[in-house]
Amino acid sequence: MTDALSIARDLIRCPSVTPADAGALGVLERALTAAGFTCHRVTFSEEGTADVDNLYARIGTEGPHITFAGHTDVVPPGDESAWSVGAFSGEVKNGYLHGRGAVDMKGGIACSVAAVLEHLAANAGKLRTDGTGSISFLITGDEEDVSINGTIKLLKWAAERGEKFDHCVLGEPSNVETLGDTIKVGRRGSQSGTLYVDGVQGHVAYPHRASNPVPDISRLIVAISDEPLDHGSAQFQASNLEFTSVDVGNKASNVIPGEARAKFNIRYNDNHTQASLRELVETRLAKACGNRIKARIVWEPSNSNVFVTKPGPFTDLAVSAIEEVTGRKPELSTSGGTSDARFISSYCPVIEFGLVGQTMHQVDERVPVTDLEKLTKVYRGILTRYFG
Amino acid sequence: MTDALSIARDLIRCPSVTPADAGALGVLERALTAAGFTCHRVTFSEEGTADVDNLYARIGTEGPHITFAGHTDVVPPGDESAWSVGAFSGEVKNGYLHGRGAVDMKGGIACSVAAVLEHLAANAGKLRTDGTGSISFLITGDEEDVSINGTIKLLKWAAERGEKFDHCVLGEPSNVETLGDTIKVGRRGSQSGTLYVDGVQGHVAYPHRASNPVPDISRLIVAISDEPLDHGSAQFQASNLEFTSVDVGNKASNVIPGEARAKFNIRYNDNHTQASLRELVETRLAKACGNRIKARIVWEPSNSNVFVTKPGPFTDLAVSAIEEVTGRKPELSTSGGTSDARFISSYCPVIEFGLVGQTMHQVDERVPVTDLEKLTKVYRGILTRYFG
Repeated sequence: MTDALSIARDLIRCPSVTPADAGALGVLERALTAAGFTCHRVTFSEEGTADVDNLYARIGTEGPHITFAGHTDVVPPGDESAWSVGAFSGEVKNGYLHGRGAVDMKGGIACSVAAVLEHLAANAGKLRTDGTGSISFLITGDEEDVSINGTIKLLKWAAERGEKFDHCVLGEPSNVETLGDTIKVGRRGSQSGTLYVDGVQGHVAYPHRASNPVPDISRLIVAISDEPLDHGSAQFQASNLEFTSVDVGNKASNVIPGEARAKFNIRYNDNHTQASLRELVETRLAKACGNRIKARIVWEPSNSNVFVTKPGPFTDLAVSAIEEVTGRKPELSTSGGTSDARFISSYCPVIEFGLVGQTMHQVDERVPVTDLEKLTKVYRGILTRYFG
Repeated sequence: MTDALSIARDLIRCPSVTPADAGALGVLERALTAAGFTCHRVTFSEEGTADVDNLYARIGTEGPHITFAGHTDVVPPGDESAWSVGAFSGEVKNGYLHGRGAVDMKGGIACSVAAVLEHLAANAGKLRTDGTGSISFLITGDEEDVSINGTIKLLKWAAERGEKFDHCVLGEPSNVETLGDTIKVGRRGSQSGTLYVDGVQGHVAYPHRASNPVPDISRLIVAISDEPLDHGSAQFQASNLEFTSVDVGNKASNVIPGEARAKFNIRYNDNHTQASLRELVETRLAKACGNRIKARIVWEPSNSNVFVTKPGPFTDLAVSAIEEVTGRKPELSTSGGTSDARFISSYCPVIEFGLVGQTMHQVDERVPVTDLEKLTKVYRGILTRYFG
């Protein structure tokens, strides 16, 4: 069965909670090999992280070369008893395919594979009438967590083999409310850091002998995050800083702790570079600390720089294919979280178009079966225009 | 041998590391029975805690009734090889009686027993010339750890028997540097609680769909702890609230957490009751939350109420006895940590006066033999004045 629903169901039934593969890549490998693709399974390793399986599959040897990128790993289901059907059952109920990864993004991958198989079947196994053109799949099992042994290494591996990509479609759930409402053409950069505040430990009964870092870090959190970082740019919304955790870990109710720390993440637009952003936050910190509070920020290494794919022929043909199927003219958006597009953008223009993200990462993640059918048609429309 | 040094030595030689008795109560029971006391050994139990032995001994049937309270359990010696003499040897060296419990508080108990025996011997077995008056001992083996099967239950047991106490002397090491420098006449109350702030979990890339509790709890921590709770009272320093921990425990840098919590402890004086204190903090919280922040406080059960024994005839006679023996006018202090006095204060006025606390809970805990002699004289002076 090579329709999108069947492929999606087969993928969901593999409990590929990141970084486990659980057979998911094999589902794709079998379908693509049967359709004439040459498949490569590539495992990447790095000390301190789990080994991760990746799949690179290509048909055709000449350009133009369009690649479909994606990931088969999923986030954990959480408390499975809260799900109305098994998180890995792939059950269809009331017109919805249920299961972890249904929209993020096993469903999207299934539609792209189904569309490619249909395109080949409709064109006697050729992509273009003259036999040129290439389609490839760049599929990783390492997107939902550390993203170290996945797309970033798979792209490097492919480049070293001489693979050249002209354009990429990443099937992440790009739509906000309805299929066709949004193409993602760029992403903000992401930068994380940890704020440490040093106090002096002591007994709560003798506070004058201690210095409590808890109220101090509280003041700094407010001072750093209260004012916006900017007011947006032509293609991006405003940069934003969120404190994601604040922790002391002191279990003794009679002890004033010696240190407090808070983690934050910044999503930033093309008004900023990593360097300008760090400077802005450090300046706010120094002002809030004055001469009294002892604090420091440790910045995490980040490979999530801001990027954008400018409007042009490639975005135009995607918009046209989406309009034809859905009747909607999608917004070219740069909002939302990071994805592997940040890595792909260094190799070729990339757009993201997939399913509707509403239930992603939630209990009862699910996709209307009709959306799978429509997304498959959109991808077919893209292929027809691309190779036409 | 009924002098304080002998009794203290006998007690130290019982390795009564809490909650073990190791014969300690028997030492007292034998001495007191021989002097005409009626002794009761009472064992209290509670699920999840060790059974603990307690001793109640009384002489006399009428008032005025003064009770000496104390505990024979001790904290562990730690690494005994670090001690210059055996921790349970009770050895006298260079004029000091060494051993765990020497000052906290086997030494103090020994002095009170010796003083009572001397008083009886000097008055032909009577407390007062008219035969009235009562002395009792309330001795527990459960003070150094959980304090569940000790004084709190022994007092209840005695009350149910119809025992009425007029005054209590608790022989805890009250002095800071020199015998006679401090009587403890009260303690601040202690009340802990946890502040919870509810947000809405979400992805850092979509902050408008989430509500981040981290900046909100930070604002609340500042609002609750920035202003003093009061400015002290006649006998107490200012009440004080310290946030001892703030925790979220979110390890995912791309997730805005759904909840944050902060633990705090309050040491409060006689401007407050538990109820007024809770109301004050809740009012500050409600004001800082406004209609926007969802927060609540869970208060921990507390049996550490504030108490104070006001200056009057009972404290006056203790001060007079101390001045006579030591030449010092003791400070009536309410500072420092909790003791069983917090329980006794519900039954009768209580003061704490014992040895010098400097070596308590330390390696080489020890007491000058001359301090044992002086403290015995102070207790005798108290009895003479009390029954005079």
